[in-house]
Amino acid sequence: MIFKNITILDENFDIQKNMYVGTREGKIAYVGKVAPQDDFGETFDGTNKALLPGFVNAHTHSPMTLLRGYAENLPLSRWLNEKVFPFEDRLNPDRAYFGTMLSIAEMLSGGTTSFSDMYFFQDGIMRAVKDSHAKINFSRSIVSFDNTDFLEDSRVLEALEAVEKYHNTENGRIKVDMCLHAEYTNTYSMIRQFGEYTKGKGLINHIHVSETKSEHEECKKKYGKTPTELFYDVGVLDSPTIFAHCVWIEECDREILKNTGATVAHCPASNLKLGSGVCDTYALLQKGVNVAIGTDSAASNNGLDSFREMYLAALLPKGIRGQADIVSPKEIIKMATVNGAKAQGRFDTGLIKEGFKADLTVIDTDKPNLYPDFDILNNIVYSAEKSDVVLTMVDGEVLYKNGEFTTIDIEKIGFEVNRIVKEVVSEV
Amino acid sequence: MIFKNITILDENFDIQKNMYVGTREGKIAYVGKVAPQDDFGETFDGTNKALLPGFVNAHTHSPMTLLRGYAENLPLSRWLNEKVFPFEDRLNPDRAYFGTMLSIAEMLSGGTTSFSDMYFFQDGIMRAVKDSHAKINFSRSIVSFDNTDFLEDSRVLEALEAVEKYHNTENGRIKVDMCLHAEYTNTYSMIRQFGEYTKGKGLINHIHVSETKSEHEECKKKYGKTPTELFYDVGVLDSPTIFAHCVWIEECDREILKNTGATVAHCPASNLKLGSGVCDTYALLQKGVNVAIGTDSAASNNGLDSFREMYLAALLPKGIRGQADIVSPKEIIKMATVNGAKAQGRFDTGLIKEGFKADLTVIDTDKPNLYPDFDILNNIVYSAEKSDVVLTMVDGEVLYKNGEFTTIDIEKIGFEVNRIVKEVVSEV
Repeated sequence: MIFKNITILDENFDIQKNMYVGTREGKIAYVGKVAPQDDFGETFDGTNKALLPGFVNAHTHSPMTLLRGYAENLPLSRWLNEKVFPFEDRLNPDRAYFGTMLSIAEMLSGGTTSFSDMYFFQDGIMRAVKDSHAKINFSRSIVSFDNTDFLEDSRVLEALEAVEKYHNTENGRIKVDMCLHAEYTNTYSMIRQFGEYTKGKGLINHIHVSETKSEHEECKKKYGKTPTELFYDVGVLDSPTIFAHCVWIEECDREILKNTGATVAHCPASNLKLGSGVCDTYALLQKGVNVAIGTDSAASNNGLDSFREMYLAALLPKGIRGQADIVSPKEIIKMATVNGAKAQGRFDTGLIKEGFKADLTVIDTDKPNLYPDFDILNNIVYSAEKSDVVLTMVDGEVLYKNGEFTTIDIEKIGFEVNRIVKEVVSEV
Repeated sequence: MIFKNITILDENFDIQKNMYVGTREGKIAYVGKVAPQDDFGETFDGTNKALLPGFVNAHTHSPMTLLRGYAENLPLSRWLNEKVFPFEDRLNPDRAYFGTMLSIAEMLSGGTTSFSDMYFFQDGIMRAVKDSHAKINFSRSIVSFDNTDFLEDSRVLEALEAVEKYHNTENGRIKVDMCLHAEYTNTYSMIRQFGEYTKGKGLINHIHVSETKSEHEECKKKYGKTPTELFYDVGVLDSPTIFAHCVWIEECDREILKNTGATVAHCPASNLKLGSGVCDTYALLQKGVNVAIGTDSAASNNGLDSFREMYLAALLPKGIRGQADIVSPKEIIKMATVNGAKAQGRFDTGLIKEGFKADLTVIDTDKPNLYPDFDILNNIVYSAEKSDVVLTMVDGEVLYKNGEFTTIDIEKIGFEVNRIVKEVVSEV
């Protein structure tokens, strides 16, 4: 496909107007100010359109979209114990499949091309990814209050099975990471063994870290160190790592994150909604830590909307620190795209650059909410919304265009989701 | 028009399914579970749709949409002095007209039926309101560093002219309020005279109050009282009053607001984006103060989107106070509708109730971001977005339906807005 006369964010996230971008065999094969010599087949007229790298949702739990709006305005423990856990107990791979399909549809319709997913029911989730042609870094989360051997824990075995069965399949669209759910949901023995096992395996670790104040403080009481220090000490950070949340981390933790090249998956909506607080992303960015953006699940958000998440990520540091001039739109859009791709170990993704994966999003700039067009970067971060997306492409394949999905029967998904939630609610 | 088989939020903001709502002569003439006997003309099939009261944007500056994305990431004083003021100096009634038309288009497309607007160039703004059939409480803001007589100040005279010329015109769609821009932009003499003059006039006062910490603290230093105390003492609060922002108000201020029945127009996005802080709406609600929601201008937001504003208003108290169970979706939607209508002195607006004005919004619930449908109220506040709106009606007249405006030529507005901003930029 060749996008012509289109405004793009180039590899430095600078705005270039009237550009040509050609894709071939899943990659960006041409970026230039003049029409390419080669024939790229289908032409996309980019008049009043902007082409961006696809968004990467760096932390979510895709089947939980089934719980959207199910339980609101409850304290975290009641929300989990009375609502979320009993509901999740009724899930199965088939139900997870439809929840994930709904999540993928929502993400594609909002320009999100890849997501780091932490959950279980891997066969259901993987089927959804295969059917939809979406891109995923999946991890099966390990929760263990036992002191069993690592390789005898049923969740560990499932996680390793996921790696074995799915890692680097579908032309690399599917990657499998390793996941320790959190410090507070595992014994020290399990944490230590996780660190030892994952060292040198070349897999990414994905962990919930310092999401709530009590989690952070309890860990310090128990171990005399922060969760980040603990994970560092047992070698978890010897692998490339995504720490989700990091609301309550301290300067010593930021230092470790910087030195180990770890990523913080910032989930501003969920952190606010669950009353956890606000991650100090400004301090992280100042320190030079890689910060990506995640939606967390639709049960605590309640959407999977990269635009809404970018908007929050852009506004919160300004409001909380009382400084209007910190965290620029360019920093925000990098967080939502290339920083997330790096976190997923996808170093050829997240930029509009020749040789990079053709994971792309087109927005229609001819909308009342995007007038006037002083600076499309400002408008994308502060004014655009999910519905401005008119095309989403993953590995060069158009998966969403003008409200239609090419791989998803959204009517069927909607129907099945409603059926499933009715069944589950009647069971709990 | 008769909406049939539609889900509504009833006058208590409880969800009622499969309802009939009939409108006649600008009002809601029927609400019931069975089809009315009377013929209401055109039928709207409400399958998979939800009917809400139209949103009221309780604080904005509509022509400033011309500045959307113009100046970003600057400290407030540089933003105002180097960017906003020089730009505004080049505005005129004609330019303000097109800026307001764009704002009205954006608001109507997102289900906002009425707005409290504070600006100047009243003839331009009023022409836009008349042409579009939108609903407005306009106020000409008074800024005066002189100690002239109230009735000799040119801005006061313009404000009074606006009242004279426009108040209660267009079948009451246009109301004119009185506006003191803020404490820090007026002399004590002007503030005192404003209080004296407005007393007993039956007009609403609309004022920026305690938006920034420095404004609040400087006022205390200067007068030995908070801005709210100062306004109270000179009689401003003897009239129904909207205080915009109130980020830095204190308990003594909340007490005054409660006792005088004033409204706080909460502008969460703008307060964050300009680094002002977060208004403690939970404390206001606990105290029983009427809290409405405003977007402020698109120059500091950068949109006029009641859904995005509701979302922020819902999340921020939870995140800032660390309590997931405060400020319910029902409280939020009241803030965005009936509380705003009350603030505008429109006591027959903001509820789906027989005899109330037919200011209504329909959202399409058959969208991926609104599945599953456990509770449409949760979904509206936490998951819906502007683009889910399929119909917006003001005084019984459809002004927006399925992406089309009935009174606005949006192509022309877009063209003119782009022309104007190019001209202005070349002039500054």
